[in-house]
Amino acid sequence: MMIVPVILSGGSGTRLWPLSTPERPKQFLPLTTNRTMFAETLARVADRSRFAAPVVVCGESHVAHVSADLALLGIWDATVIVEPAARNTAPAIALAALAVAQDACLLVMPSDHAIARPDAFLDAVTAGYPLVAAGHLATFGIEPASPETGYGYIAAGAPMGDGGVRAVRRFVEKPAREAAQVMIDTGGHYWNAGIFLMRADSYLGSLKTHAPQIEDTCRKAMQAATTAAGALHPDAATFAACPSDSIDYAVMENAEDVIVVPVDPGWSDVGSWAALHAIAPKDEAGNVVRGAVTLVDCTNCFVRNETGEMLSLLGLSDMAVIAAEAGRVILPLARTQEVKRFAS
Amino acid sequence: MMIVPVILSGGSGTRLWPLSTPERPKQFLPLTTNRTMFAETLARVADRSRFAAPVVVCGESHVAHVSADLALLGIWDATVIVEPAARNTAPAIALAALAVAQDACLLVMPSDHAIARPDAFLDAVTAGYPLVAAGHLATFGIEPASPETGYGYIAAGAPMGDGGVRAVRRFVEKPAREAAQVMIDTGGHYWNAGIFLMRADSYLGSLKTHAPQIEDTCRKAMQAATTAAGALHPDAATFAACPSDSIDYAVMENAEDVIVVPVDPGWSDVGSWAALHAIAPKDEAGNVVRGAVTLVDCTNCFVRNETGEMLSLLGLSDMAVIAAEAGRVILPLARTQEVKRFAS
Repeated sequence: MMIVPVILSGGSGTRLWPLSTPERPKQFLPLTTNRTMFAETLARVADRSRFAAPVVVCGESHVAHVSADLALLGIWDATVIVEPAARNTAPAIALAALAVAQDACLLVMPSDHAIARPDAFLDAVTAGYPLVAAGHLATFGIEPASPETGYGYIAAGAPMGDGGVRAVRRFVEKPAREAAQVMIDTGGHYWNAGIFLMRADSYLGSLKTHAPQIEDTCRKAMQAATTAAGALHPDAATFAACPSDSIDYAVMENAEDVIVVPVDPGWSDVGSWAALHAIAPKDEAGNVVRGAVTLVDCTNCFVRNETGEMLSLLGLSDMAVIAAEAGRVILPLARTQEVKRFAS
Repeated sequence: MMIVPVILSGGSGTRLWPLSTPERPKQFLPLTTNRTMFAETLARVADRSRFAAPVVVCGESHVAHVSADLALLGIWDATVIVEPAARNTAPAIALAALAVAQDACLLVMPSDHAIARPDAFLDAVTAGYPLVAAGHLATFGIEPASPETGYGYIAAGAPMGDGGVRAVRRFVEKPAREAAQVMIDTGGHYWNAGIFLMRADSYLGSLKTHAPQIEDTCRKAMQAATTAAGALHPDAATFAACPSDSIDYAVMENAEDVIVVPVDPGWSDVGSWAALHAIAPKDEAGNVVRGAVTLVDCTNCFVRNETGEMLSLLGLSDMAVIAAEAGRVILPLARTQEVKRFAS
């Protein structure tokens, strides 16, 4: 099996404000390691005995970040597709699917998620591959650790072959907490992490059936694509007419042959400073600290100072303090999802 | 009666760090108004129908701040005495007492205290004046609002004349909380605010009796004083030999003829950010905010941002956040006295 990694680099950059900004969204920040999330995503699928050269789909303003990380990892044969406009994931994946051999198997991944156990993730890819090679569209279902209301859920149906793979019974949009708890108690429900495995022709065929205008405009935009500075530029005028939709809405929720591969890879979408605190290495008092910071008698805090100025904290608990060029913010860890209020 | 204000400008500048620094201690910061505490102290005794030109005793490094505030208030006839070295209050007051007519009555005041009701304070000065003119040394006793352990206390004795003036039974050093509570419950005990009213000759006479070396070195240093740039410079070599001691230890606790004038002038030594929060005007949620700050859902916070960078706070309660050139600090209001740990 040879799989083409497709790395989607979207994201508006408000959830980890003031570090993430429209100019440098989350995937281009070194959050969990000293490399960016984008570089970590590339590295996860860099084994050339299993994966082909990656396809990256990104916006014009992020090409420089993409190039820097590709160079950092010594990847010189990636295909970089520059979206002329943001149209959500269904068109972005279509552009990638149109750039590769039609029987190629695509591993579609967001570029801003953390995966603590890449081996478990790669094992799940292996488990899903046979059915995908036979034409199924696979999604990866993350074992839910808590009744999160910020994720979509996947309700699994009948077992399909080996490795725990199952049919998808239905997709559940972001639920209320009570409904989320019921799904967890019931079992057989997984978080939808936005990671997919599918043949290019399977995806484009399903897209043609369920969202023909997306398939059509993407195909025409790629036919009229130009190459500049090593990147592929789909025709902007054509792509401008493409509807904006997610792969979930446009394809997955409508297609018949969707399967789910359950996996527990230590996944996090790092959707808030609290989420980053949760997965980061901590000191003995539960603090995660980076930058010029003096901490006295603090517990369970997340402190990140990207400025050169010393930050002195005393007697804080369960707080997030982030100082960067774009802003300085202080708020309880439990409310870090509200940080986007300040992103202007 | 004509009284000479003597304004002492000492202070190390660590309690309100990072705003107060050795270069600009508390008295030279605009804390309670848009004028500095020093300027407010000058203004309080600027009525020339009651007060003579002030005497200021300060260190060399603060002469520029003193001059600026004197100019701001249009005071051109002040006597500025530059201490060649820091020797605590007993020598500082001695220098002032040696610079004025010996029958002059000195109103000695720290320059970094807030007084919300200056009229009450001036009434107390009036009440104490007759006994002071007759030779007594008067201290002002602040009605204690709580069992503070950070202040010395004055135990009042027998009534002396009108206006509630009483003899001093004894001075009590900073007590334990239990002892402080006993004093408050007993009544007749006051905070020692370090404000004094006394004739120059009474003070120097008592100093000669109880701390003769201080009196002697100060007298000689003033005899050899030089004038430069409008300020009086006691002889440094002579003053270097002067013992360092407070007026309380050197004189007040030993003298026989000390009286206390009880007063409740809305006094605060502004000894911490919490103390400043307590006396400052607040918004409807109890916050005191100054500078470029965005507050969302915060209650009872003190936020002061002297930098040009926006500070964004959400969901904080009972916290102090201070950002200035010298540092950035975040800590609970209840622990602001610990801020000096960070002052380096």
